[in-house]
Amino acid sequence: MNEETREIYERSQFGHTLTRGKRPAVLVVDFIYGFTDPQSTIGSDLGPEVAATRTVADAARERGYPVIFTTIGFEANLLDAGIWLQKAPGLADQRIGSRAVEVDRRLDPQPGESVVLKKGASAFFGTNLAAILLSQGVDTVILCGATTSGCIRATAVDLLQLGFPTLVPRECVGDRAKEPHEANLFDINAKYADVVSVNEVLEYLASTSAR
Amino acid sequence: MNEETREIYERSQFGHTLTRGKRPAVLVVDFIYGFTDPQSTIGSDLGPEVAATRTVADAARERGYPVIFTTIGFEANLLDAGIWLQKAPGLADQRIGSRAVEVDRRLDPQPGESVVLKKGASAFFGTNLAAILLSQGVDTVILCGATTSGCIRATAVDLLQLGFPTLVPRECVGDRAKEPHEANLFDINAKYADVVSVNEVLEYLASTSAR
Amino acid sequence: MNEETREIYERSQFGHTLTRGKRPAVLVVDFIYGFTDPQSTIGSDLGPEVAATRTVADAARERGYPVIFTTIGFEANLLDAGIWLQKAPGLADQRIGSRAVEVDRRLDPQPGESVVLKKGASAFFGTNLAAILLSQGVDTVILCGATTSGCIRATAVDLLQLGFPTLVPRECVGDRAKEPHEANLFDINAKYADVVSVNEVLEYLASTSAR
Amino acid sequence: MNEETREIYERSQFGHTLTRGKRPAVLVVDFIYGFTDPQSTIGSDLGPEVAATRTVADAARERGYPVIFTTIGFEANLLDAGIWLQKAPGLADQRIGSRAVEVDRRLDPQPGESVVLKKGASAFFGTNLAAILLSQGVDTVILCGATTSGCIRATAVDLLQLGFPTLVPRECVGDRAKEPHEANLFDINAKYADVVSVNEVLEYLASTSAR
Repeated sequence: MNEETREIYERSQFGHTLTRGKRPAVLVVDFIYGFTDPQSTIGSDLGPEVAATRTVADAARERGYPVIFTTIGFEANLLDAGIWLQKAPGLADQRIGSRAVEVDRRLDPQPGESVVLKKGASAFFGTNLAAILLSQGVDTVILCGATTSGCIRATAVDLLQLGFPTLVPRECVGDRAKEPHEANLFDINAKYADVVSVNEVLEYLASTSAR
Repeated sequence: MNEETREIYERSQFGHTLTRGKRPAVLVVDFIYGFTDPQSTIGSDLGPEVAATRTVADAARERGYPVIFTTIGFEANLLDAGIWLQKAPGLADQRIGSRAVEVDRRLDPQPGESVVLKKGASAFFGTNLAAILLSQGVDTVILCGATTSGCIRATAVDLLQLGFPTLVPRECVGDRAKEPHEANLFDINAKYADVVSVNEVLEYLASTSAR
Repeated sequence: MNEETREIYERSQFGHTLTRGKRPAVLVVDFIYGFTDPQSTIGSDLGPEVAATRTVADAARERGYPVIFTTIGFEANLLDAGIWLQKAPGLADQRIGSRAVEVDRRLDPQPGESVVLKKGASAFFGTNLAAILLSQGVDTVILCGATTSGCIRATAVDLLQLGFPTLVPRECVGDRAKEPHEANLFDINAKYADVVSVNEVLEYLASTSAR
Repeated sequence: MNEETREIYERSQFGHTLTRGKRPAVLVVDFIYGFTDPQSTIGSDLGPEVAATRTVADAARERGYPVIFTTIGFEANLLDAGIWLQKAPGLADQRIGSRAVEVDRRLDPQPGESVVLKKGASAFFGTNLAAILLSQGVDTVILCGATTSGCIRATAVDLLQLGFPTLVPRECVGDRAKEPHEANLFDINAKYADVVSVNEVLEYLASTSAR
């Protein structure tokens, strides 16, 4: 963003830092083959972002913090997609049971880790993710995944609204195109979550009490 | 309920009738084997209620109105059950992929009919049922299923709160025990939905414009 | 409930106890003049329940735990009531700015205590109560107020669904009529929260670490 | 957005058009003095956007369609703001009862029009807006207001998720800074709503049946 935009945001007092809690969870949004396979209609090459997320997830696993995945999947009749497919018909490939819906194996999802099936952009819309977080005592979220301008942005908004301080490690979120990625990182950091480096997240995890 | 209770409710102006819309859907809550198989820990014999619901569903199908089912199913790790299993450990049998989660075949579920996977009592909690109803233009709900004192009651509350006028055909909702069934039908009719006969529902369906 | 009902519920494994957390809040639902003034259309005499709730609220205040009130209030045009007034026209007296919407002074509400304005039965429907609880680190709820068969029941369902273990002190919830009160306490204890004595709640509060 | 971004979005099949319904409402998000008064910390000059919205609102009023406003307002203790003020402390001026919370008079709000009090970015978070829309039979939303990169974007996401086809008249949404405004209009049109001219909205309103 240019200088003028930055000045306006400073004057309006956006972009302050959130107070972090003591029990974080890593939330990995839609790093599923439909998004991480460049051959998929709605996919792109997200290799580096997946790798960085694996590092963060492993650091959380070591300390016994929850790692939670989301995926998008629809019934064969697609009625559960509501009107979303009118806007983005490429999402019709996300059928329950298909490879597109599976979490990318490079993240090594474990049997003890939740995979939340969602039907909208936000990880909270039409899911019980709030209950999954609350019942495990989570008070802070580390938000990774794709796409920055879609489901990450929508999830960051809901996390702030619900009262979960959220860190977005810059290297762990990806998108199809550079411009919307950057524009949304700017908005997210200004209004909804703290966009930080993956190193800062790893230091934060190290600073919290071990299991 | 005794005379005194009825008088108090009349004085408090409860139990009035809702204005019905023009495009109803039939919502069948948890008529799944976990609930309709008497051998199941949380099941009971709901044969007559399932049969009455089949009649209502078929009448809706004839007119092209949506029939929507719900089921309860958890991942193997049960984290998506939140704290529900602390209160009701019998629900732990509801694993995704097991027979307990399947809609009772006596209702003849069709490929074009939604099966909403829920993780709580209300059909709206942690689901996108609102989107499924809205995107199909539904303005009225006919609520059937089990149990009256559990998921039916919770769903009826949310339907009223969301603004969907709801009919509960008395013969189409069932429960494990008679007392909570009756007490909840009283509450539902007083405060959340119109409890009517299955005949009144069939007449209402006949009165709406055909496909 | 009779012996048969109790046997069925035991066999179905309902009524187990929830694991309590370390930072409770007291949630006082609708102890507002519209409900606690016997002259109000929808009111009744709830003096003892209000007094018992004051004791619980004061014990929480001493330890620095949040006390949160809810009220029901509509705009003059009543459009924000949705279809609720069709079912229960007596609620139309709940106009924002009127005495009916005020929290009963016997509870001594403090400037530092939230008063959540709701438009439905559940304290969570159409409110940001979840954010109010989460942002203050609340992990357990003590649920008091009125009416047992209405807003208390609906709120207890949502609390369980969201993952908040909940205690309902029996002496702190009230209703217009005895039968629905008792029937709903039975349901709540079987499926959604732990119905206990006010003494047990005071002991629990004493057992948690002070501020 | 540059050519490459546009190509990627076309290949991914974003930006298709939504099917409009027959009973629209105009939803005016946060055209309140806190946002429309350039002297306010979080305000800016939105005169042209307010004027264009007035034109759209009047056209809807003529046909008897609902016009609904939102505002942001907190209690004096600010506990109902959750963690939002950590990120954006400038919002602390939005106290219930203050001028900052009032709908801008240039829109001529009427007694029969809802003013939804919200505590988050989306007009749906912590509100019963869904019930207000549903109970009035609304099937399409015309979304106006501020800011494009904040509450408009968040509301557009929820509208799509809930199943309401939405039109965003370009002239009727405004923001503090040009870049985020443009970037969010691009995202909104690609994924959540149809961004159109105010003329197209007026033609659509004229094409729907009069009251």
